[in-house]
Amino acid sequence: MTEFESFAVELAHAAARVTLPFFRSDIGHEDKGGAKGFDPVTEADKQAEAAIRRLIAERYPDHGVIGEEYGEDRPDAEHVWILDPVDGTRAFISGLPLWTTLIALRTGGKPTVGVIAQPYLDEIFIGGPSGARLLRGQTETPLAVRACEHLTEAVISTTDPNIFNGAELGAWTQVRAAARLARLGCDAYAYAMVAAGRMDLVAETSLKPWDWSALVPVIEAAGGRVVNWRGEAPDGSGQILAVGDERLIDQALVTLRRAAA
Amino acid sequence: MTEFESFAVELAHAAARVTLPFFRSDIGHEDKGGAKGFDPVTEADKQAEAAIRRLIAERYPDHGVIGEEYGEDRPDAEHVWILDPVDGTRAFISGLPLWTTLIALRTGGKPTVGVIAQPYLDEIFIGGPSGARLLRGQTETPLAVRACEHLTEAVISTTDPNIFNGAELGAWTQVRAAARLARLGCDAYAYAMVAAGRMDLVAETSLKPWDWSALVPVIEAAGGRVVNWRGEAPDGSGQILAVGDERLIDQALVTLRRAAA
Repeated sequence: MTEFESFAVELAHAAARVTLPFFRSDIGHEDKGGAKGFDPVTEADKQAEAAIRRLIAERYPDHGVIGEEYGEDRPDAEHVWILDPVDGTRAFISGLPLWTTLIALRTGGKPTVGVIAQPYLDEIFIGGPSGARLLRGQTETPLAVRACEHLTEAVISTTDPNIFNGAELGAWTQVRAAARLARLGCDAYAYAMVAAGRMDLVAETSLKPWDWSALVPVIEAAGGRVVNWRGEAPDGSGQILAVGDERLIDQALVTLRRAAA
Repeated sequence: MTEFESFAVELAHAAARVTLPFFRSDIGHEDKGGAKGFDPVTEADKQAEAAIRRLIAERYPDHGVIGEEYGEDRPDAEHVWILDPVDGTRAFISGLPLWTTLIALRTGGKPTVGVIAQPYLDEIFIGGPSGARLLRGQTETPLAVRACEHLTEAVISTTDPNIFNGAELGAWTQVRAAARLARLGCDAYAYAMVAAGRMDLVAETSLKPWDWSALVPVIEAAGGRVVNWRGEAPDGSGQILAVGDERLIDQALVTLRRAAA
């Protein structure tokens, strides 16, 4: 692994030490309703982002950082870390082990290293210049997308159709009708499954840079593609299409493009 | 644990030894399309059910067995084991670690011991006469539902709204609109989260006896309730409502009862 890839893994481990004790914890359970009520997922998110930011500031003081919780520092630096320590807060709240820690390094404006980590599963999916792999305990497995020539054979996913606006929902429904099988409720974990060659396509909307930046290097280093709903590089539209086999892009965009922002 | 509870755990471990090597395996990947194509999830399901049936036949030759794959043996026996070695085959196919092995013991016509096991997570949720607990590695954690007086505070789940018929979908949509948060795509794992006090309500339809029998002792031993959409014991209707706090039953049934079979 490259220096930045190894550092991204180090950051994922640091985040896990913070987030995991909050997962399925009962700390503050009694006062969840109060205005000052303790919210485990928000605490996990904040404390993990703070821990990651400390490590970055120590090791690479000139790097920028963009995080969901603590905003932007030097967003125009050559190297910018983009962080979402707990993506899938609703899964986290519900006790489901499909929330993830997302860490991306943007270099020259483009995501170059990405981590999708699930601490309860002890899984770190990492992609970057040296390739894509899954780290679990002492085991390292290469990640590779699978071939899927036709949408009719594809296993596809979106987190929740309720997030779509009317045009997007229409487009998704049509893509889903064509596909072999659809899974819901996976948040960023679905993209890890594309990189691992288990799913073929994910389409979502309303994603922020800290939601999608880490996905790009993981999927692309595994051989897939991530685009917006116009077929261009992901951007402020928040509309994301990720595929394992790039032949699926046109087949999905025939429909999705009609709802493109 | 009682003798039958310990035996149910033994069966879950036996099933895990069979199913886990098939999960995310590439065996036969190339010929998935062919008529004689190798189907990992069907193989896992069949081989695990065969392994469980062998153990039951050895230990309790007079017990009955009902399984999804190999049908019924002595279904009218005093003790009948009800098996679904891989519940959530679509999650399994998609690489998602939320499929489960479901094992129930029905005694005198009523589910008395239940296991919801997820081998990749090394989790066994078990409920029976001695209580409800989560076994993970060497760790044993008691399971207990949480209080949730009002549907408006509830975290709820269903696997896929597409499974509902028109009346059921209308009812679900109304329940969902009232609830605090909904998660999709969890299969039987959602019921384990109710028993663990992480979710409050699950509503599903079209469930077979091997889908719902194991859920009942896990949830009820943890303090919750499982009923059909008329508020009665689960039955051939396949419509299931599981709650952690029984005060939610009437609030959900106001709506669900209108779509009850």
